[in-house]
Amino acid sequence: MARVHNFNAGPAGLPLPALERAQRELIDFEGTGMSIMEHSHRGKAYEAVHNEAIALTRELLAVPADYDVLFLQGGASLQFAQVPMNFLPAGKSADYIVTGGWSEKALQEAQRVGTARVAATTAKDKRYTSIPKQGDLQLDAGAAYVHMTSNNTLFGTQWHWLPEVGDVPLVADMSSDFMWKKFDVSKFSLVYAGAQKNIGPSGVVMVLVKKSFLAAARKDIPVILRYETHAANNSLYNTPPTFAIYLIRNVLAHVKERGGLDAVEQENRKKGELLYGAIDAQPDFFRAPVAKDSRSYMNVVFRLPTEELEKKFVSEAAKQGMVGLAGHRSTGGVRASTYNAVSYESVSKLVEFMKDFQKKA
Amino acid sequence: MARVHNFNAGPAGLPLPALERAQRELIDFEGTGMSIMEHSHRGKAYEAVHNEAIALTRELLAVPADYDVLFLQGGASLQFAQVPMNFLPAGKSADYIVTGGWSEKALQEAQRVGTARVAATTAKDKRYTSIPKQGDLQLDAGAAYVHMTSNNTLFGTQWHWLPEVGDVPLVADMSSDFMWKKFDVSKFSLVYAGAQKNIGPSGVVMVLVKKSFLAAARKDIPVILRYETHAANNSLYNTPPTFAIYLIRNVLAHVKERGGLDAVEQENRKKGELLYGAIDAQPDFFRAPVAKDSRSYMNVVFRLPTEELEKKFVSEAAKQGMVGLAGHRSTGGVRASTYNAVSYESVSKLVEFMKDFQKKA
Repeated sequence: MARVHNFNAGPAGLPLPALERAQRELIDFEGTGMSIMEHSHRGKAYEAVHNEAIALTRELLAVPADYDVLFLQGGASLQFAQVPMNFLPAGKSADYIVTGGWSEKALQEAQRVGTARVAATTAKDKRYTSIPKQGDLQLDAGAAYVHMTSNNTLFGTQWHWLPEVGDVPLVADMSSDFMWKKFDVSKFSLVYAGAQKNIGPSGVVMVLVKKSFLAAARKDIPVILRYETHAANNSLYNTPPTFAIYLIRNVLAHVKERGGLDAVEQENRKKGELLYGAIDAQPDFFRAPVAKDSRSYMNVVFRLPTEELEKKFVSEAAKQGMVGLAGHRSTGGVRASTYNAVSYESVSKLVEFMKDFQKKA
Repeated sequence: MARVHNFNAGPAGLPLPALERAQRELIDFEGTGMSIMEHSHRGKAYEAVHNEAIALTRELLAVPADYDVLFLQGGASLQFAQVPMNFLPAGKSADYIVTGGWSEKALQEAQRVGTARVAATTAKDKRYTSIPKQGDLQLDAGAAYVHMTSNNTLFGTQWHWLPEVGDVPLVADMSSDFMWKKFDVSKFSLVYAGAQKNIGPSGVVMVLVKKSFLAAARKDIPVILRYETHAANNSLYNTPPTFAIYLIRNVLAHVKERGGLDAVEQENRKKGELLYGAIDAQPDFFRAPVAKDSRSYMNVVFRLPTEELEKKFVSEAAKQGMVGLAGHRSTGGVRASTYNAVSYESVSKLVEFMKDFQKKA
């Protein structure tokens, strides 16, 4: 059938040209007589792809030279443990800004590894509908690091400013808003992002890490869990998830062809304005629970007057080729994830459907 | 170009029908209008694939009901750390049988986590050319577990018997000989295997683990590193590497179509006999450094009279479409990895080339 309008929260839709490229050469990569996934990770063919993916990341995000770009495994969930294992020594405490379910999990893993405290939380009745303000942060000036989640997929909130943390290293889980626009990498000591939202399939997590921060990491943990190991080996210490990294290369090459992250950001902002505009235009029917200044451009969450109507909305949309609109199983409601690969046309179609649905309801 | 004869050690060749199936449906999986990698890991389409991969593993290997089948990330290298983190409590010691470079790494990670000792090693002049005998094992009856590496890709050795370890749990790294034949799973408490040899692309590791062994694991480590977490959630605690697991499903479905593991084993044994036969027939030119009773059916290692001839052999073979024949960078020589996806015809072609090469040398 025709490609659907994919509003999945992650794994999410990928740009068709990146997939078509993969399909064309799945059995014979660049005339080598084998798939890229059948190549040795130590061979020239794969190495070129690997290094191109890193170079594209550096170029698109203007990553400073004193940062390493890593491809790791285990997703953001392993990063929740790996960050404190590396950077939270005994006798120190880490600060966590808790803005959703993923922040909670990151905090819990840190507390299993060492001492971690909540520097701020925006939880109200088990829901997180806003991002804190600078004045809400109770920061520990001696903290090992401050951890934040830049976009919250479950609740549809997103940071549109960066916390001022003084000399304390800032660490961010950017899984769900990495590569949707440029950001100032130099404000962070470490950024990690599971690929399965904007940049590739599941099974690989990207890490940007400042070399001086790495140098201060603990060395008394298993070698495989030290970031230093992977930085020293260009993410080839052990066999990387080669096909997933190849797909990231395809996606980033496509982002560059589209005009880079400024063009991608512009389209993402237009999509967000269109969709939030449609919600705000009918406040008696559609309701956005998130504070306006905290609304996410990646995960647009809204409610309908009843849960019954929400279910009907999701199932009728699916019949018209718009899938993945059910809210997270822990929150309910409707959620349209509008990552880079979701086109303005897909969002327009959803907005038309919303208008029709309301009229008939 | 035509598909080459791929003797890579891993990532290795995959069966063409499994890749062609992936290629056909890369953009539209079973009429859903999206790639399997764009599906939610919590949706019905992916869940069916995930569960089929597990069911095929259970069926092909006759996995007992009291074992969990898991898909994890981080490769065997993370398992080297994860095994002792889970199963090596303070006050206990683990036994390692060291038969190659990968065993060494597993031992080193265990020693970073706790106390681990060498129960046997077959190292001679930094080379491992045999598998120990039962009488060589200095086992600790109180050990937390005994760890072995069932096949050694670097040196081309393979266990053709199982060590008798009494009541101590036996743990095996089977990365490079998993799914080449049936084995008695009940002899092991835990088996792990990186997929990129016989069963799929890199980026996923399979684990078979006895439920009662799991129940005794440490609970004071990060949740993501506990096997129990993944067992309790059918490997869906966090987002799994969905496309890699889908490819495993394709490969295992193909193994079943070929007649299951008995048929696969028969072909693998024929391939090994043909290749070792060709080596042994010309002992003045080809030399197999591995003891006959320890020869691997997965990685056939041999030497030529000089390093110069070895280089020429590898490069001339490549010109005739036989690639991946260089020995590991740490060992040198020639290595033909003959995993399941390498056909008898490919091995025959290699053997013909060997004869021709010798005549011309």
